[in-house]
Amino acid sequence: MNFKEEYQKRIESIEGILEKFLPEQKGYQKVITEAMEYSLMAGGKRLRPMLMRESFELFGGKGKLIEPFMAAIEMIHTYSLVHDDLPAMDNDDYRRGRKTTHVVYGEDMGILAGDALLNYAFETACSAFELEPEKSLMIGRALNILAGKAGIYGMIGGQVVDVKESGHKITGDMLDFIYRLKTGALIEASVMIGAVLAGASDEEVLKIEEIAGKVGMAFQIQDDILDVTSTTEMLGKPVHSDEKNEKTTYVTLRGIEDSRKEVKRLTSEALDTLKGMKNENTFLNELLEWLVYREK
Amino acid sequence: MNFKEEYQKRIESIEGILEKFLPEQKGYQKVITEAMEYSLMAGGKRLRPMLMRESFELFGGKGKLIEPFMAAIEMIHTYSLVHDDLPAMDNDDYRRGRKTTHVVYGEDMGILAGDALLNYAFETACSAFELEPEKSLMIGRALNILAGKAGIYGMIGGQVVDVKESGHKITGDMLDFIYRLKTGALIEASVMIGAVLAGASDEEVLKIEEIAGKVGMAFQIQDDILDVTSTTEMLGKPVHSDEKNEKTTYVTLRGIEDSRKEVKRLTSEALDTLKGMKNENTFLNELLEWLVYREK
Repeated sequence: MNFKEEYQKRIESIEGILEKFLPEQKGYQKVITEAMEYSLMAGGKRLRPMLMRESFELFGGKGKLIEPFMAAIEMIHTYSLVHDDLPAMDNDDYRRGRKTTHVVYGEDMGILAGDALLNYAFETACSAFELEPEKSLMIGRALNILAGKAGIYGMIGGQVVDVKESGHKITGDMLDFIYRLKTGALIEASVMIGAVLAGASDEEVLKIEEIAGKVGMAFQIQDDILDVTSTTEMLGKPVHSDEKNEKTTYVTLRGIEDSRKEVKRLTSEALDTLKGMKNENTFLNELLEWLVYREK
Repeated sequence: MNFKEEYQKRIESIEGILEKFLPEQKGYQKVITEAMEYSLMAGGKRLRPMLMRESFELFGGKGKLIEPFMAAIEMIHTYSLVHDDLPAMDNDDYRRGRKTTHVVYGEDMGILAGDALLNYAFETACSAFELEPEKSLMIGRALNILAGKAGIYGMIGGQVVDVKESGHKITGDMLDFIYRLKTGALIEASVMIGAVLAGASDEEVLKIEEIAGKVGMAFQIQDDILDVTSTTEMLGKPVHSDEKNEKTTYVTLRGIEDSRKEVKRLTSEALDTLKGMKNENTFLNELLEWLVYREK
C-alpha cells in the first residue's frame, strides 16, 4: 500500500473507534448527544489519535488500551473547535463545509456540547481503568499528561493568549508561546500518551515530546503559509483569513521564504531524532513529512 | 462547638485547600488564572467538598488524598455556574452579590474560564496519583465517578434538559430527571468519592449515593420553596425568579404544602439510612438537616 492508502485505512479505523465510544442517542438529554456526534463525526485529519496510535506501536504497544485515549484526545480537540466557533469567540458559521455546531443546535447547546465533549473525553479515558485495572498507575500517568496538555499550561493557555491578543501586534516570543500551546500541546500529548501506555521509558517519552513539539510548530507555520499561498478550493476553508482578522502570524513576522525554511529545519530535526530511536515506523515518518509539507 | 462554629471552621479549611490548588498567577495567560480565581473564590456554601470530606471521615479515611478531589468537585460546580451565567444561557450579571465572570472578563474569557476550570478540575484530581501512587486503582474509581456524575448522564445532562425545556410546561417525571441530574449528581459524586477513597465497600458506596440522591432532591425542592417564600435580602439573590422565567418547579407542580412534606419525607429517609450505617458523624447529620431546612 502507498502512503495515501495507509492513511485512509487508518482514518477509517479511527472513525470506527470514535463511533464505538460515542454516547448512545437516548434519554431526555438526547439533543446533546446528537450535537456531540455532529461535531465529532464531521471529518478532519484525525491527526491526534493517528499520531497517538503510531507512537504506541513505535514503542511496542499492543491491545486496546490506547483506544479510549485516542477517542478522548479527538473529543478534546473537537470541543475546542466548537467553543472557538461560538459568536463570542471567532463567530464562524461554517467549518469543513458544514454549519458549525452552535448554528445547528443554538448557542446555548453549542456551549453545552463543548462542555459535554470535554467532560466525556475524561469519562472515556477513565474507562481504561476498567479495561486493564492492573495498569492503573500507567493510565494515571497518561491522564496526567492529557489533562495537563489540554489545560491552562497547554491548549487552553494558548487559546487564551490568541483570543486576548487578537487584533494586536504581538512579538515573536508571544507567537511561539501561542503556537507551542494552542497547536503543539495536544500533538505532544498524543505521542506522549502513546509512548506511556506502551511502557516507554521517561527518556523516550521526553524525546517523543520534543519531536512532537517541532512537528506541531512546523504544522502551524505551514498553516500560516497556506493561508497566504493556497486557494479556498484547495483548503476547503477561506484563505487570507489571517489578513482579514489582522492576525500576526509567522508569515507576517518573518516572510514566506523564512517561514518555509523554518518548516524545513524543524521537520528535518524532528525526523532525525525519530530515526535515532530504537524502533522504526515508516508510516510515521511519511505522516510527519506529509503533515508539514501538505498543500491543504 | 455548636453547628455554626463547626460549619465555619470547615468553610475556612476548604477555602485554604482551594487556594492551595489554584494555579499560579503568571505567564501570558494570566488573565485566565485570574478569572478562575475570581469565580472559584467567590464564596458559597462549599457544600460539595464539605460533604466529600465528611463522607471520607465517616468511612475512616485519613490523610490528604481527599483534598485534590475536594478542590476538583468545587471547580466543576463553579465552571457550571460560570457557563450557566453566560448571555447565551441564563444571562445573569450578578451572582452572590458580585458581577459574574463574563461581565468582569468579557464573554470570550467567560467561556474559556469555564473550560479552564473544568479541565483544571481533572488536572487537580489527577495530582492524587502522585500523592499516593499505590492507590492508583482507587483513584481511578474516584475519577470515574467524578467524570460520570459531572457529564451527560449527570450534571450536564440535567442542565441540557433544564435549558431546553425552559419556558415550556414540563411533566413531574422530567422535573425529577432535571433535579436528580443537575443538582443531585454532584452531591452524589461528593459523598461517593469520599467513601471510595476511604476504602468503603461497594455496598456502602451505593448506600451513601442513595442518601445523597435524597438530600440533593430535598435541597432543590427547598430552593423552589425559598424562591416563593423568602425575600431578596434573606437569599442574597432575586426571589420569584422561577415565576419570572415561567419555570416549572416542584412548587408550581405540587404546591407549597406538598413540597414541604416531600422535603421532610426525603430528609428523614436519608437520615434514617445514615443512622443505620456503621460509623457515626454527628456533624454530617446536622449538616444534612440544616441544608434542607435552611432559610436561605
